[in-house]
Amino acid sequence: MNETIDLMMRHRSIRKFTKEQVPPELLRTIVQAGQMASTSSNVQAYSIIHVTDSEKRRQLAALAGNQEHVTESPVFLVWCADLYRLKQACDFKDEPAYIGTTENMVVSLVDVALAAQNAAVAAESLGLGIVYIGGIRNKIAEAAELLGLPELVTPVFGMCIGYPDQNTLIRPRLPLEAVFHENSYSSERYEEQLNRYDIMTEQYMLNRTGGKRSITWRQAMRDKLSKPARLHMKSFLASKRFWEDEK
Amino acid sequence: MNETIDLMMRHRSIRKFTKEQVPPELLRTIVQAGQMASTSSNVQAYSIIHVTDSEKRRQLAALAGNQEHVTESPVFLVWCADLYRLKQACDFKDEPAYIGTTENMVVSLVDVALAAQNAAVAAESLGLGIVYIGGIRNKIAEAAELLGLPELVTPVFGMCIGYPDQNTLIRPRLPLEAVFHENSYSSERYEEQLNRYDIMTEQYMLNRTGGKRSITWRQAMRDKLSKPARLHMKSFLASKRFWEDEK
Repeated sequence: MNETIDLMMRHRSIRKFTKEQVPPELLRTIVQAGQMASTSSNVQAYSIIHVTDSEKRRQLAALAGNQEHVTESPVFLVWCADLYRLKQACDFKDEPAYIGTTENMVVSLVDVALAAQNAAVAAESLGLGIVYIGGIRNKIAEAAELLGLPELVTPVFGMCIGYPDQNTLIRPRLPLEAVFHENSYSSERYEEQLNRYDIMTEQYMLNRTGGKRSITWRQAMRDKLSKPARLHMKSFLASKRFWEDEK
Repeated sequence: MNETIDLMMRHRSIRKFTKEQVPPELLRTIVQAGQMASTSSNVQAYSIIHVTDSEKRRQLAALAGNQEHVTESPVFLVWCADLYRLKQACDFKDEPAYIGTTENMVVSLVDVALAAQNAAVAAESLGLGIVYIGGIRNKIAEAAELLGLPELVTPVFGMCIGYPDQNTLIRPRLPLEAVFHENSYSSERYEEQLNRYDIMTEQYMLNRTGGKRSITWRQAMRDKLSKPARLHMKSFLASKRFWEDEK
């Protein structure tokens, strides 16, 4: 199609990296490309913490579930939703202000993800590999403390970046029709579409594990969603004043 | 730098489009590029509603604040956070399940934004222009009703796509240092950084309006955040069962 779309179509997460460092100027370019993503009313409600201190990296990796690549990747970034800078910028005193609202929480979560995805694609366009680390939310309060995040700032995900030292398969996505609706939401054909996807996923898993393991998408989702996960998120975001709406 | 990063660096929102239609195959490619974005544990917690019905377009445009481009753009998509398909896929009966949790709300908001940003960049790589439409959240319950969204599905933003019929300036972003921290969050230099950005923003606004209007970033943010905005988001997301965590 073109270079950019071909690149996206080849995306897979990279969890093993060579020892080659990412030049600081390249990293700056990647983050600047992230900044160029759309942002709601230009609020730019995100911050990125570049973790270079090796002891801090080690502690964060432990908090994120001891994934080796969080310690080993040449670059580790923590992408945060940030309404605090806006509050500082406005310097509201006694006037009414609407900052920590559910609407703005949504805005900041979307803003940080848009910027991160631009950065991810920019990194990949430079021959780097990346993986998002949702595990940063495992012990989110401790991670936030370690990074010195003030009120109205929360970690959303980490990101490892480096030169790939593995060549993994591209994971098939849901059939287009299962996510792309015309005029109205339609789940009528989910049964058939998910059957189809289960077969694709099983085949992919077999290929990926050299025939050793396999699971359907639906079974993987059942396994995942039958267990409680990060039930602290509601109270953590409330403690950071991300939703103070009256009702 | 390279084609992909150059493209990102030239991004600006497009709100005026030529009458040229976007071929269906191209739109499918754009959405498929969106699907290739990273997704948390492969949950793919999003759906896209392609609004082709002109009466529905008109109604949505009215709900979104009567922005002309929402009616006039060749393509209008509504990007939704979607935990409903997962619920269908799992078919939990009496077993305990954790679907409508704050954690999964965050996951679905991030997932939909990552996919949308890939799609946005893919569209731009094909010579198209786009603009995100947060206004879809203005009357979110009505928009959700119009699109037939079930529980656990919420509109997050719209997106207009088409061939650009305007050549707008690139809006400067915050200085890199104001969003990019090392090891710890630091707001120490915000005053200086935001002063610098205020000057850049004023100049940009003067250039954009042919010298007619200008405003600093901080003043624009003050104006925005001193007014209540979409305070229905909390109760709407609750009504859609996006956070049912016990505490």
